[in-house]
Amino acid sequence: MLVVSSALLTDGVRASLINDFPDQTFEFYRSIDEASDRYPYIEILITYGEDLTPFHIRQMSKLKWIMVISAGMDLMPFAEIKERNILVTNAKGIHKIPMAEYAISMFLHLYHKQPIFYENQKKQAWNRNILVNEITGKTMTIVGTGEIGQELARIAKAFQIKTIGVSRNGEPKDYFDEVYPVDELITTLKHADFIVSILPSTNETKYLFQLAHFKAMPSHSIFLNMGRGDVVSSDVLLSALNTNQIAHAVLDVFETEPLPKGHPFWTHEKVTMTPHKSSHSPMYIPRAITIFRENLKKYSKGSSNFINEIDIDRGY
Amino acid sequence: MLVVSSALLTDGVRASLINDFPDQTFEFYRSIDEASDRYPYIEILITYGEDLTPFHIRQMSKLKWIMVISAGMDLMPFAEIKERNILVTNAKGIHKIPMAEYAISMFLHLYHKQPIFYENQKKQAWNRNILVNEITGKTMTIVGTGEIGQELARIAKAFQIKTIGVSRNGEPKDYFDEVYPVDELITTLKHADFIVSILPSTNETKYLFQLAHFKAMPSHSIFLNMGRGDVVSSDVLLSALNTNQIAHAVLDVFETEPLPKGHPFWTHEKVTMTPHKSSHSPMYIPRAITIFRENLKKYSKGSSNFINEIDIDRGY
Repeated sequence: MLVVSSALLTDGVRASLINDFPDQTFEFYRSIDEASDRYPYIEILITYGEDLTPFHIRQMSKLKWIMVISAGMDLMPFAEIKERNILVTNAKGIHKIPMAEYAISMFLHLYHKQPIFYENQKKQAWNRNILVNEITGKTMTIVGTGEIGQELARIAKAFQIKTIGVSRNGEPKDYFDEVYPVDELITTLKHADFIVSILPSTNETKYLFQLAHFKAMPSHSIFLNMGRGDVVSSDVLLSALNTNQIAHAVLDVFETEPLPKGHPFWTHEKVTMTPHKSSHSPMYIPRAITIFRENLKKYSKGSSNFINEIDIDRGY
Repeated sequence: MLVVSSALLTDGVRASLINDFPDQTFEFYRSIDEASDRYPYIEILITYGEDLTPFHIRQMSKLKWIMVISAGMDLMPFAEIKERNILVTNAKGIHKIPMAEYAISMFLHLYHKQPIFYENQKKQAWNRNILVNEITGKTMTIVGTGEIGQELARIAKAFQIKTIGVSRNGEPKDYFDEVYPVDELITTLKHADFIVSILPSTNETKYLFQLAHFKAMPSHSIFLNMGRGDVVSSDVLLSALNTNQIAHAVLDVFETEPLPKGHPFWTHEKVTMTPHKSSHSPMYIPRAITIFRENLKKYSKGSSNFINEIDIDRGY
């Protein structure tokens, strides 16, 4: 069967797939368009999930399985996929390690006053009168208790941090000391030193954090958003910072990306920002391909029970 | 009995001691000299351990117990203390949490490219072409497997880091995957992504790390010293950095402190430094006083088995 990748894969990954699955024919392209002559013959497609249109699905008349090597499924032509009953799997779970590290790294960055020591080194200033802090024993509210939230909670527990989760239904999860349903969000914020949003963008999550939520947070607390930018409006967050409702915001995602030049976040002394990088890792593709390989073994044997099979009706 | 503190304690700590131990008389001073009238009456002395001379011990004829609320015992007049068989306890163990956090925070800082994002924010540059990395799954060699090393190893294990310990005798310790005796130090460095020295300054540890050790480390490795500065000479370390034996050094301690202005470490692009701050924490005094309180209960009852009792002959 013909396996085509429209996602750029390294020579090492290509060679190992060819070597380990001799019964399959692999073809690697740099884009879906480059593979256009091959559309009618493709049985399995490896893609980042952002290049497929209904046209492609119709042209790929033999397509049986789409492996999306990311977690976002927003741009998939699900109607056509469902009609043909095409198997879709994704790489859900591969973001959890870098994102959990990102959040912990940022809280340590701020509590250990790394920006101050960084500037003092540049000034050759030996100043020991910097009040450093420790994250051990603090309280963290994690809004979103999926795989990423759980991984963050797991590492937080190693620092003896009290972990409070917020999810749709509030059901208990490993590594969370407590979990509450989202309609009790505001009560989970009152004793939080750290608040982390890992929410995707949906109708339910858009502008979930209102000024009242920031007013409920302790004035020394740090709000970190690495889910989607529209969970809070820029104006609300700026207002919360400027009226000292919270001490700091760490932002990896924004209502508009790239964040426009001149936006107040860039220069705000209470904002630390990164350009939507929290999920990046050199292990991203290797981990995605590991999932693909496991699924390809099952597929070749005609078995099912695939890792990360997508429910087409739900879209995740 | 009279309990005198020559260490500056907060009003809160003072009040809680007076309240919780009504049978004792507490007097609090800002220095040992300020308490000179009271020397003949002191039974228990709370001190940072840097203010005592043989003269003080002779003048304090009733002194039975010295509580040193730090871990360093280098400046204690042990000959006079031994002669009088005075009990000495210290606050060993209270450094482990901030120092373990310090090491993890620095590896995350460098692997997650925080200095680059910090500079890019100042420039309002939305640049996603920064190759971030993750510390998960890497290998860390920790030279010194005492309480601090163990705490660091414990947190490292939460990140699935392989932990290799180096100690005098190489005996197994919790949270270390492997432990080797110090004469095998060089073999523990070959596969280390992170090398951490937590060694005190002794005749055995002085200049322990020679150029050959840095040559054994991978060229991408990071060397972090938060023990004592004289475990490696500045010249050797600079040579290792300048000849690309290692990628980076994180230094909290130095041969000479404060590090003199103009020293090459200040401006070296491969050096991240802090001014001997890794053990600092707002929890320092509370944790030390917790040890003192436990010991005071035992002392008041005439029992022994004190926490952190010092072996006067060994000096630790």
